[in-house]
Amino acid sequence: MQKLIITVAPTGSLPRKEQNPHVPVTPQEIVDCALRCEELGASIVHIHVRDRDQNPSDDPKLFQEVVSGLKAAGSKLIIQISTGGRAGSGLESRIARLNVPCEMASLTTGSVNFPNSVYVNPPADVKALAEAMRERGIKPEMEIFDTSMVQPAIDLAKEGIVSTPIHFNFVMGLKGTQPATIEQLVHLKRMIPENSTWTVTGIGRFQLPLAVHAILMGGHVRVGLEDNIYYKKGVVASNEMLVERIVRLAREFDREIATPGEAREILHL
Amino acid sequence: MQKLIITVAPTGSLPRKEQNPHVPVTPQEIVDCALRCEELGASIVHIHVRDRDQNPSDDPKLFQEVVSGLKAAGSKLIIQISTGGRAGSGLESRIARLNVPCEMASLTTGSVNFPNSVYVNPPADVKALAEAMRERGIKPEMEIFDTSMVQPAIDLAKEGIVSTPIHFNFVMGLKGTQPATIEQLVHLKRMIPENSTWTVTGIGRFQLPLAVHAILMGGHVRVGLEDNIYYKKGVVASNEMLVERIVRLAREFDREIATPGEAREILHL
Repeated sequence: MQKLIITVAPTGSLPRKEQNPHVPVTPQEIVDCALRCEELGASIVHIHVRDRDQNPSDDPKLFQEVVSGLKAAGSKLIIQISTGGRAGSGLESRIARLNVPCEMASLTTGSVNFPNSVYVNPPADVKALAEAMRERGIKPEMEIFDTSMVQPAIDLAKEGIVSTPIHFNFVMGLKGTQPATIEQLVHLKRMIPENSTWTVTGIGRFQLPLAVHAILMGGHVRVGLEDNIYYKKGVVASNEMLVERIVRLAREFDREIATPGEAREILHL
Repeated sequence: MQKLIITVAPTGSLPRKEQNPHVPVTPQEIVDCALRCEELGASIVHIHVRDRDQNPSDDPKLFQEVVSGLKAAGSKLIIQISTGGRAGSGLESRIARLNVPCEMASLTTGSVNFPNSVYVNPPADVKALAEAMRERGIKPEMEIFDTSMVQPAIDLAKEGIVSTPIHFNFVMGLKGTQPATIEQLVHLKRMIPENSTWTVTGIGRFQLPLAVHAILMGGHVRVGLEDNIYYKKGVVASNEMLVERIVRLAREFDREIATPGEAREILHL
């Protein structure tokens, strides 16, 4: 089995310090938190940024501050920029974020309902984002919120816009999207090309069980406060606690943890 | 096994007479075609209407003309009005269609990409449509384009907005949406409550194999030019030919065909 790639998603668009004081929101906080998670075993950091009021932002300067901070500190983390649309931004500003130096970026290959909104990713926008990534040598992580998003990712590879092996992230358990069941995970795993790599992002209380399934099934794992602010019922988590738990469990199952360098090899970066 | 309910979707929003001369587009053509399909074994007619240029329309008068024509001819078909958004209409006009007398209407419980667009159904609109159906005593058919749309349908039933058993229509094989595989169908069937009824709509060349799976698995079947304009490769179909083929195959498998009255019982109308 491949060594386990742990992605940490420390911030996201939604959780606020009022809900969980451990959410890093300023660029410096995000840098410090990511460095600690790297020390603990994370090899990818998935980056969202916030403005001064903790609201999601797509200001490239804020992304740049985070990246510069990590580089200055000698971090070897793989930097993955979110191109998600929750920051309320259109295609242009989603593409503009890709000018921040990074090795990976998220790419959602379809549309789906979120709890109180529609996450709109028209086919033409998906293609434009993928092309912008190719031009910049950035590897997309395919954010799969439901089965319909798998084939468009494969099609982008067939068209030569995305290189293989494709890396998928199954995002599971967000209300409005696919269910966070083992049946769904097994079904998704069967749908992707054999040489693909895949990781699982379980939302909320689904983060832990889905992560464990993924560790045992040969997948990779994303954890972090973006997706889940609790360590267990009633106990708020920190990103560090969530990464540590995955490392501890992986060791129980004798699955080794990938360094950032090993993750680059596994992902063909 | 329940008797087989055959839905015919004769018109839809897309196929034009230039592609297939058998597509009924005027209200009179739709009525005549539906009556012939009833004679052959259909028990539900899924209705879209077109304007004079064959473009999709949401003019309630056109829907009313079809319904009046069917009633005047003594049809016992269950009338199912499409509330689909392809006619380019907003929530209000989608609800306005429900004032046409009908026993069923389609309800898509989420958002998904279509080949060149986004089929946008925000959670609030889904709920508003379901409530409008409840007020009018109309049973929704849940149009399931991917796994994420199943739970919102179940939630509407839990909230008492939709009565049980829920009726699902798995729409499979449209580019951008869920794949038209037997694995997907088996997975969907496992996701729905045990007492549900379900039908399958296979798009294009998937119409026949998925219909046969459904006949054998205890589901029901939708066919028609809305979803598939070919009888087989290179041979254009008529709605009548598509209904006849399903009846013939069901008899091969010893599955009896439901009359409209029997379909009403199966669906708890």
